[in-house]
Amino acid sequence: MKFPKLTRRTSPQNSSIPVDDLGFGDKVARIPGTRLVNDDGSFNVVRRGRSVFAPYQELVEMSWPRFLMLTVMVYAILNLVFALGFVLIGTDSLTGIDSEASFGSRFLSAFFFSVQTFTTVGYGTMAPDGVAANVLASFLALFGWVALAVVTGLFYARFARPTRLILFSDHALIAPYAPTGKSLQFRIANKRDTKLINVNARIVLTWLEITGGEVKRRFAPLQLERDKVPLFPLNWTVVHPISEESPIYNWTKEDFNHRHSELLIMIEGYDESFAQQIHVNNSYTHDEIIWNARFEPMYFEAPASTELHLDRIGRHQVLEEE
Amino acid sequence: MKFPKLTRRTSPQNSSIPVDDLGFGDKVARIPGTRLVNDDGSFNVVRRGRSVFAPYQELVEMSWPRFLMLTVMVYAILNLVFALGFVLIGTDSLTGIDSEASFGSRFLSAFFFSVQTFTTVGYGTMAPDGVAANVLASFLALFGWVALAVVTGLFYARFARPTRLILFSDHALIAPYAPTGKSLQFRIANKRDTKLINVNARIVLTWLEITGGEVKRRFAPLQLERDKVPLFPLNWTVVHPISEESPIYNWTKEDFNHRHSELLIMIEGYDESFAQQIHVNNSYTHDEIIWNARFEPMYFEAPASTELHLDRIGRHQVLEEE
Amino acid sequence: MKFPKLTRRTSPQNSSIPVDDLGFGDKVARIPGTRLVNDDGSFNVVRRGRSVFAPYQELVEMSWPRFLMLTVMVYAILNLVFALGFVLIGTDSLTGIDSEASFGSRFLSAFFFSVQTFTTVGYGTMAPDGVAANVLASFLALFGWVALAVVTGLFYARFARPTRLILFSDHALIAPYAPTGKSLQFRIANKRDTKLINVNARIVLTWLEITGGEVKRRFAPLQLERDKVPLFPLNWTVVHPISEESPIYNWTKEDFNHRHSELLIMIEGYDESFAQQIHVNNSYTHDEIIWNARFEPMYFEAPASTELHLDRIGRHQVLEEE
Amino acid sequence: MKFPKLTRRTSPQNSSIPVDDLGFGDKVARIPGTRLVNDDGSFNVVRRGRSVFAPYQELVEMSWPRFLMLTVMVYAILNLVFALGFVLIGTDSLTGIDSEASFGSRFLSAFFFSVQTFTTVGYGTMAPDGVAANVLASFLALFGWVALAVVTGLFYARFARPTRLILFSDHALIAPYAPTGKSLQFRIANKRDTKLINVNARIVLTWLEITGGEVKRRFAPLQLERDKVPLFPLNWTVVHPISEESPIYNWTKEDFNHRHSELLIMIEGYDESFAQQIHVNNSYTHDEIIWNARFEPMYFEAPASTELHLDRIGRHQVLEEE
Repeated sequence: MKFPKLTRRTSPQNSSIPVDDLGFGDKVARIPGTRLVNDDGSFNVVRRGRSVFAPYQELVEMSWPRFLMLTVMVYAILNLVFALGFVLIGTDSLTGIDSEASFGSRFLSAFFFSVQTFTTVGYGTMAPDGVAANVLASFLALFGWVALAVVTGLFYARFARPTRLILFSDHALIAPYAPTGKSLQFRIANKRDTKLINVNARIVLTWLEITGGEVKRRFAPLQLERDKVPLFPLNWTVVHPISEESPIYNWTKEDFNHRHSELLIMIEGYDESFAQQIHVNNSYTHDEIIWNARFEPMYFEAPASTELHLDRIGRHQVLEEE
Repeated sequence: MKFPKLTRRTSPQNSSIPVDDLGFGDKVARIPGTRLVNDDGSFNVVRRGRSVFAPYQELVEMSWPRFLMLTVMVYAILNLVFALGFVLIGTDSLTGIDSEASFGSRFLSAFFFSVQTFTTVGYGTMAPDGVAANVLASFLALFGWVALAVVTGLFYARFARPTRLILFSDHALIAPYAPTGKSLQFRIANKRDTKLINVNARIVLTWLEITGGEVKRRFAPLQLERDKVPLFPLNWTVVHPISEESPIYNWTKEDFNHRHSELLIMIEGYDESFAQQIHVNNSYTHDEIIWNARFEPMYFEAPASTELHLDRIGRHQVLEEE
Repeated sequence: MKFPKLTRRTSPQNSSIPVDDLGFGDKVARIPGTRLVNDDGSFNVVRRGRSVFAPYQELVEMSWPRFLMLTVMVYAILNLVFALGFVLIGTDSLTGIDSEASFGSRFLSAFFFSVQTFTTVGYGTMAPDGVAANVLASFLALFGWVALAVVTGLFYARFARPTRLILFSDHALIAPYAPTGKSLQFRIANKRDTKLINVNARIVLTWLEITGGEVKRRFAPLQLERDKVPLFPLNWTVVHPISEESPIYNWTKEDFNHRHSELLIMIEGYDESFAQQIHVNNSYTHDEIIWNARFEPMYFEAPASTELHLDRIGRHQVLEEE
Repeated sequence: MKFPKLTRRTSPQNSSIPVDDLGFGDKVARIPGTRLVNDDGSFNVVRRGRSVFAPYQELVEMSWPRFLMLTVMVYAILNLVFALGFVLIGTDSLTGIDSEASFGSRFLSAFFFSVQTFTTVGYGTMAPDGVAANVLASFLALFGWVALAVVTGLFYARFARPTRLILFSDHALIAPYAPTGKSLQFRIANKRDTKLINVNARIVLTWLEITGGEVKRRFAPLQLERDKVPLFPLNWTVVHPISEESPIYNWTKEDFNHRHSELLIMIEGYDESFAQQIHVNNSYTHDEIIWNARFEPMYFEAPASTELHLDRIGRHQVLEEE
């Protein structure tokens, strides 16, 4: 599973679909100030119409607070409903409940009984009496039993989802670079000791251009000095040399700004610990590029091993203009 | 895991196995009106003989209603069987049951006791008495315990199966296309925000041909203007330009119909959320192709993001004949 | 993940490691009558020395009867041990047990109590009394709780393992084949409706040869008329044309036999239902090759779909010698 | 998922990033005696700063003793906290507890009650009384219920992680080799019967060099006689022929030592049993290379199968200097 080579259309030449657009097309996000890729790597796209019923995916993808809140709510509501059932069956449906007590008191007792059955605790101080209550309790127990299976599956699915293990520098830099004078750089590191291998980087620049009075979105890949590292033990400074072949050769800071440029970054690699291929997107907009700066080292040699300082990922030094 | 290039037989030339047949062969489905690929993407093939015992696969692949129904049925039957066991052991095998009661009443009580043990609720208002009843209850508890493990595994497996996240337009269109005049098009979109990357499309046309009095099924791949998008944030109109090299150059609507043509569509991509490669098949039969029409836009620019209207996936405009 | 091309050593030429040996080497299984690949696709190799402690792998790979037997045994032994613990703590450690009863009777009661705690049924007719018994019961409940987690994981892992979905014909055939006169064939089919895609076949012939008084094992790949099918809806007859380029050109039945030939078959494909790549090995020894025969059709056209008769997978017709 | 070809920088030539460095860079571990890859295959790198909150990954990656210890501790602490809660609610919050007893005694009883609820055993000899105690018990039961789901997920995730199935010889050898005179060799074997296929090996030599007063780390790939085996039924001796093209041509034992050389080994393959790609790193430092020795056979032919003796993986014979 490698990033495909950018597919260049060989024929027909005059098609309306732009080359290297990564699937965005040239009519997207032409209102200045709109970014294509959000900070969390998701696309800046909202889906409307034809709502998709995919409860499992939503339960797996929602945030942890929402998921836990939902679990508690479903637990509460379900037991309230069953409690109502037991109360409706009659005052004698549960032993251990004072049938003379108020409705509220009996309902509360039935709720606690329901919880005890649903979670299969079953103290037995309250217990179903009569066929109707027993049938309802049997259903409730099955419900709890199946719910445990479902919730276990959901927790595991949430855990097993690939997580963003790659740390990006907050800014990209226009940095000095001996072979070509200048380069565009950003820096990534592996957040954890987990082994990432065969890590692959790719940058596509996108910008707005006015052609014949119409705003069009343009895309161009930026060649990298090195686009792959077999192992990824430390940090990796991804470098685009700004040579004459570069689409951004001679671009000034103002060019970047008034063209509303955005660098789309795609990183992929293989996570050995979880045996899965990971893909991470990110982007730097024109105002996240720092001119004439240089990254400072983020790893240092200690006597027996090498120390990688993750908090230095973005540490850079702005150089004086000559 | 890419779609292989269609394997062209280099030698021997006069083999009886057709090129580009995707594995169907030229003798399949030659009765007009039979489609190769069903609406849900499955093959129109029925397996007979040598029944395969693969209960796990069937439990994972069956529909949700059937699966839930089956769960309830197994739960009921299993507890009925154990209830019978307790009743057969004797009237005194369970405490809390009136040994003077009718068989039906005792059986029902034993059933509820069985449920309480199987689900591990265990109120204790009924409890096994004597060695035989205790041994049976111990087995029943083990059964329930293992059943919970099995059912949990089944639910997770059902959840984790790849789902059809790709939405297809209901029809394919024969649409105007500047470079070649005409093109065959259909449109796909990602139903959810889940990221699909490296999405790949492939079309193979199949039709029936009479050669020397024998009906043969033919296959031919249709070249695409673009067969891959690295990212898939919005919709993608897959376009086969009808140029002189196209197998359907000069085909009329009648040609499509009387040859019983069917477009076999294969889409694949990598689902980042679930870290798995997905493959989706689909097909358009000749009566699902609309002539001289054009897809209308399905995404629009909003101030801060782009809106994709999924309910417009099939929206097209039929053009007037000139 | 494709089968690699067979790696031909380009240099140095006179190495002692044979080309195309698939990893077996030329000194393996040189005693006539020994096959390299067993009927179930495993290698005919026994591992000795340095026993590997991998309980999880063994629990996942063992047969179902052994696994279930082991589950029941561990359940029984564990509860017997805890029962002993409760009895040793003293006659009063559990309420609901007659402390005047015989040791056997008390031990049995303690065992049933242990089962009720381990499975979390907890009727409460027996309950721990005193600190020691409560501490032991707390450990037992934790044990049962963790054991349920472990057993659930094991069941799921056992379920999720790739299964052999591919059916092979019992014999390979030497069959007439128009382009070259003769061919070597075998037939495979997908046992279930599960979609297998991008199915790939490969045959390597291995035989024994006496060179300078020493028995050596030789290997040669057999080229296939077609080595890949993108879809696998029906059966696939894998054909090696016996042309002049074939290593078995002019081999007689006797040559196959006295050279102790074995056809090593490797099939791989992508199982869409479970989103995993599957690999199946098989082999046909010289006495599993039928000469001068032809496979009979195994699929037939029904009005609305195609019927595939799995029980006909090996059906062939022996042709008369001319 | 293949190891990428080592990316050679084609331009610009005078970059500061060394070729073939695998991602380590030339400034890492320049203190003599520091190894790049540890014995267990992990990188000799310590992460500092910006602590990453990834509890799931840590729980899955920690050792079994630590994980089990943690499970027991969390179980104990959680129940102690809830026990405190019940005691704080009041002496009458739990039935079955003598409200006249000492605080210690009541706390202990409340702890056992908490355990009985958390694990859902629920004997019922103690039970919550009053609304506050019932509400607390309901939360506790939910907690236990969710905890079981979480722990089940964790156990499965721990089980399903790829394990190191590949056994390496303890030493690499400089061995006689007919075509070139000498070779560098090491030996690997599959520890278990599990099928590994398409196994791939790669060696990169790294050493320290003093250039212009500065210590730099160098890297060079070593070509292999054979770098891939389709099947891996027995052992595999990985051989680098020391020809004139080899970077270590004419290196003496002293050269290896004073350059602080280290052989970085990368093995990858596909594990059929668990349907996952596995990657194993290893390294041999200069003092783990034995000169002028030869591996002795580690498999032998038995009448019906081949025996592989894993304890002979490192067995070698030191040859006499001529």
